[in-house]
Amino acid sequence: MARGITLVESSRADHQKIAQALLAALLPETGKAVRLGLSGTPGVGKSTFIEAFGRLLTGKGLRVAVLAVDPSSARTGGSILGDKTRMELLARDPRAFIRPSPSGGTLGGVARRTREAMLLAEAAGYDVILVETVGVGQSETSVADMVDMFVLLLAPGGGDELQGIKRGIMELADLIVVNKADGDLAPAARRAQTEYQAALHLMRPKTAAWTPHVLLASALKGEGLDKVWEAAEAYRTALTKSGDLDRLRANQAKAWFWTELREGLIASLKTDPKAAALVPQLEREVGEGGTTPTAAARRLLGLVLGRAEEA
Amino acid sequence: MARGITLVESSRADHQKIAQALLAALLPETGKAVRLGLSGTPGVGKSTFIEAFGRLLTGKGLRVAVLAVDPSSARTGGSILGDKTRMELLARDPRAFIRPSPSGGTLGGVARRTREAMLLAEAAGYDVILVETVGVGQSETSVADMVDMFVLLLAPGGGDELQGIKRGIMELADLIVVNKADGDLAPAARRAQTEYQAALHLMRPKTAAWTPHVLLASALKGEGLDKVWEAAEAYRTALTKSGDLDRLRANQAKAWFWTELREGLIASLKTDPKAAALVPQLEREVGEGGTTPTAAARRLLGLVLGRAEEA
Repeated sequence: MARGITLVESSRADHQKIAQALLAALLPETGKAVRLGLSGTPGVGKSTFIEAFGRLLTGKGLRVAVLAVDPSSARTGGSILGDKTRMELLARDPRAFIRPSPSGGTLGGVARRTREAMLLAEAAGYDVILVETVGVGQSETSVADMVDMFVLLLAPGGGDELQGIKRGIMELADLIVVNKADGDLAPAARRAQTEYQAALHLMRPKTAAWTPHVLLASALKGEGLDKVWEAAEAYRTALTKSGDLDRLRANQAKAWFWTELREGLIASLKTDPKAAALVPQLEREVGEGGTTPTAAARRLLGLVLGRAEEA
Repeated sequence: MARGITLVESSRADHQKIAQALLAALLPETGKAVRLGLSGTPGVGKSTFIEAFGRLLTGKGLRVAVLAVDPSSARTGGSILGDKTRMELLARDPRAFIRPSPSGGTLGGVARRTREAMLLAEAAGYDVILVETVGVGQSETSVADMVDMFVLLLAPGGGDELQGIKRGIMELADLIVVNKADGDLAPAARRAQTEYQAALHLMRPKTAAWTPHVLLASALKGEGLDKVWEAAEAYRTALTKSGDLDRLRANQAKAWFWTELREGLIASLKTDPKAAALVPQLEREVGEGGTTPTAAARRLLGLVLGRAEEA
């Protein structure tokens, strides 16, 4: 499977051909795992949590794959996520598989490769796929778009949490887990749980089948992790019963299709030499107010599609 | 200006040619108005609010244009927004201009026409542009993407508010106004203000220059509206000073350019007879899990771009 994922991550045309054929052949074997997304800023204890949670699951006999979406890996050539040195025990667990984030040039490229790695892991029989992200740019939205349940991991408050949760993230969450709910931080953790619960209560749930809520956990002490898994199982049961899980996955697949289509069309535009030079110039003019966005887009479309006017 | 907006809204190629030329000529005259977005579900008192707020502004000698984004108008041929019968006094005000939502086939089409109408209104010298939306689909995001400040109008609570705010909307808001804060509902309004303020406090502000907060108002009694305008002015001052307003508008224009480009490419795909038939079929197969989204997209791209493989 690791070799399969390497093929999927490769940009080489010959590798891609095999990778896509592999995915097509294995597609009927996919879809069976529990797909969980996990987001948390540095300092919230994500590696400790994943290791402890992962070992809880392997202890139950489940096979767990840990993948990661980290767009910065495209720039630095390495990723802080999926770092096996921070999850040593899990990395050595025969029922676990940990893979660092792929590089991909863009968040879209990284997301696609991660989704495809997920399909391979499912076909290989993994029961739970955890996709982690660190909260850079739009990576949480990407991850939420490929998993069944999006879990937001937070610290009890104070310190870096004073800056607040990045906009748009709380509303992606199907479950919030306040970590480090032990020792001196226990009272702060309970207060944070109350505050986030109140905020969630103001928002309309995505489905009648599930009301997002807030759990307390201490990954370090191994507390509360069983409740997180219970919540994940309850979520899966409820959304399977209501039909929401099938609808969610179908919609995610279709949205992925449209994204690939759009990005493929834009990419082809950039291979057109006339267009490739014009895009950054037009984008700059638009930003400066020198031309309307519609006029700029139509000029480019006219050039590329060979039509003088788009109406 | 009304005739200009009619041209902009028309789908006819000849009208569009004139409209785009008009917009190009007027572009240097745009950008001077205060652009406010206003969202609120039915029952929150939006028409009453807009009328009262609009008249407060015209009373100060300002010229106010009220536009609307209502994607359902594409289907029903009419819109409940921009309904002059619900804002009679403002409709008769010589300093005000009210326009119902354009039809446009899609939310994207409606949004583009509204943005262009806004540019025309600015060139015509309107000081404040209010863009209202009723909360269907992604219309709030569309409106937030075209205005400087996004104002969320809420009812005090109970009744339809028990269902909560649609996910993603609270985080778009630069200002929340709890309406109907009068009489029997005043205590509920104050409680709602406290709750939403607490929720906002958990979220990271979009910019250091502005902290979103919650105001109370009674559009019926004309109370609190001056504070809403003060907040809008304070927001504009702060974001102009920090450079955030220019950055916001430049980014909005660029994003609009990319959206027009993508949608233009997708539209051209649909005029290709081979592709047009294949799109719904592939989308269905993808949703059912019969093919991977990447394979489906590449098949279509190969067909349309004439290349057998995309790597």
